Amino acid sequence: MLVYEGKAKRLYETENPDVLRVEYKDSATAFNGVKKAEIEGKGQLNNEISSLIFQRLEEKGVESHFIRKISGREQLVRRVSIIPLEVVVRNVVAGSLAKRLGIEEGTAIKEPIVEFYYKNDEFGDPLITEDHVLLLGIASLEELQFLRKQALIVNESLQALFSEVGVRLVDFKLEFGRDQEGKILLADEISPDTCRLWDRETDRKLDKDVFRRDLGSLTEVYQEILNRLRGDISHV
Amino acid sequence: MLVYEGKAKRLYETENPDVLRVEYKDSATAFNGVKKAEIEGKGQLNNEISSLIFQRLEEKGVESHFIRKISGREQLVRRVSIIPLEVVVRNVVAGSLAKRLGIEEGTAIKEPIVEFYYKNDEFGDPLITEDHVLLLGIASLEELQFLRKQALIVNESLQALFSEVGVRLVDFKLEFGRDQEGKILLADEISPDTCRLWDRETDRKLDKDVFRRDLGSLTEVYQEILNRLRGDISHV
Ligand SMILES: Nc1ncnc2c1ncn2[C@@H]1O[C@H](COP(=O)(O)OP(=O)(O)O)[C@@H](O)[C@H]1O
Ligand SMILES: Nc1ncnc2c1ncn2[C@@H]1O[C@H](COP(=O)(O)OP(=O)(O)O)[C@@H](O)[C@H]1O
Ligand SMILES: [Mg+2]
Ligand SMILES: [Mg+2]
Repeated sequence: MLVYEGKAKRLYETENPDVLRVEYKDSATAFNGVKKAEIEGKGQLNNEISSLIFQRLEEKGVESHFIRKISGREQLVRRVSIIPLEVVVRNVVAGSLAKRLGIEEGTAIKEPIVEFYYKNDEFGDPLITEDHVLLLGIASLEELQFLRKQALIVNESLQALFSEVGVRLVDFKLEFGRDQEGKILLADEISPDTCRLWDRETDRKLDKDVFRRDLGSLTEVYQEILNRLRGDISHV
Repeated sequence: MLVYEGKAKRLYETENPDVLRVEYKDSATAFNGVKKAEIEGKGQLNNEISSLIFQRLEEKGVESHFIRKISGREQLVRRVSIIPLEVVVRNVVAGSLAKRLGIEEGTAIKEPIVEFYYKNDEFGDPLITEDHVLLLGIASLEELQFLRKQALIVNESLQALFSEVGVRLVDFKLEFGRDQEGKILLADEISPDTCRLWDRETDRKLDKDVFRRDLGSLTEVYQEILNRLRGDISHV
């Protein structure tokens, strides 16, 4: 039974009420859904990349909703109640932050910064402060501190992972949810849709900015990321 | 010698290099300068209200740049180097916060919240986090903590002041600057241009929203605020 259809994925119930089947779609969207396209192969690539990343995170001790990949475009995950926050970590200035602060894209950030955006398409996913999170009743102060800490731990792991394959992890977005017991788990996806990934040597963009900014073939660069993460050393 | 002309005030040098003369203009602007008007009497009203408020704050131990009112539309102030932050304190949800979070205007906020906006007309005075302030190099962490503390102290004093005259202090914006020794002083103005003030009984708006939202005569409500603060008890 379809539980939810989002911009990039469909969620289905399984026989186990605690487990969902996620199907990655071929849809690409940007600018809060204003720019759209169907890109054959994207769903499969993101499912493979996201599965691989969640596995590597687990090996490094970072738990997530991920159970296992079950087909080209599907994986099983633990069902959670999503906390409506986009938790963004930034190592390099890019995108909306460059615009907000008037700082040039590519400027390194000494200490990684964590931002919270209110996951709400109607309001355009606005930046919010911790006080706003508390006012909205979205999470407690302790939970916010936990989210921040987890986001920075994920950053450490992802930076290591990508650095090994010649990729600079510029920024990324995480979502978290609460399981039946209220325990907070990393959820959603981690893929070139949700990360900014720049080739370390050439600064070539290997992420969704290729789609947002019409920089070429999206599946080509997503395939490149997958190949590198799989240990295909063609990038060296 | 004119040092700076802003949207609401002109700053002039005096014989004393540490002292500026501020002239309050009759201009009203809103929505980052998109809506504009000349409103006779506004400058004088804001100068009188702002002077009166800075005096009352001083009596309660809150230092500011204010030295003294010298004419209908002029005051002398200590010259500072303005920190490009709009420090906003909110007791009730209104304006941009209502839009950002989708919370109804008028919703009370239990613990007052402090927000920082980057004072930069070109970028539209965006909301920023403390991490962004540090990244921009606008203020140190200690200074930010000081600004937050001062803003809450000003809030206490202003709430008391307005509550005595039947006015609900919904929110307000402060600016701070550094003097020659690097000491941080409350600066700029505190007036119905920079505060949201609602009549306690009727919720009638007694501030610049009258201009922003075309709710009637701006000078009438600014005069009402001045009368009340001066102890004219006509509002009871
Ligand atoms: N483990 C999970 N349990 C429940 N919901 C999840 C889980 N992981 C992700 N989700 C939610 O699944 C939805 C589908 O993903 P997506 O297509 O990216 O949607 P959206 O367009 O809302 O971003 C999102 O709302 C996401 O928060
Ligand atoms: N004591 C002070 N010393 C120096 N500058 C000040 C002082 N107080 C306020 N200012 C600055 O004076 C300028 C004029 O005020 P205003 O007309 O409100 O300008 P703006 O359009 O930039 O808001 C503002 O940039 C404000 O930050
Ligand atoms: Mg999504
Ligand atoms: Mg001003």
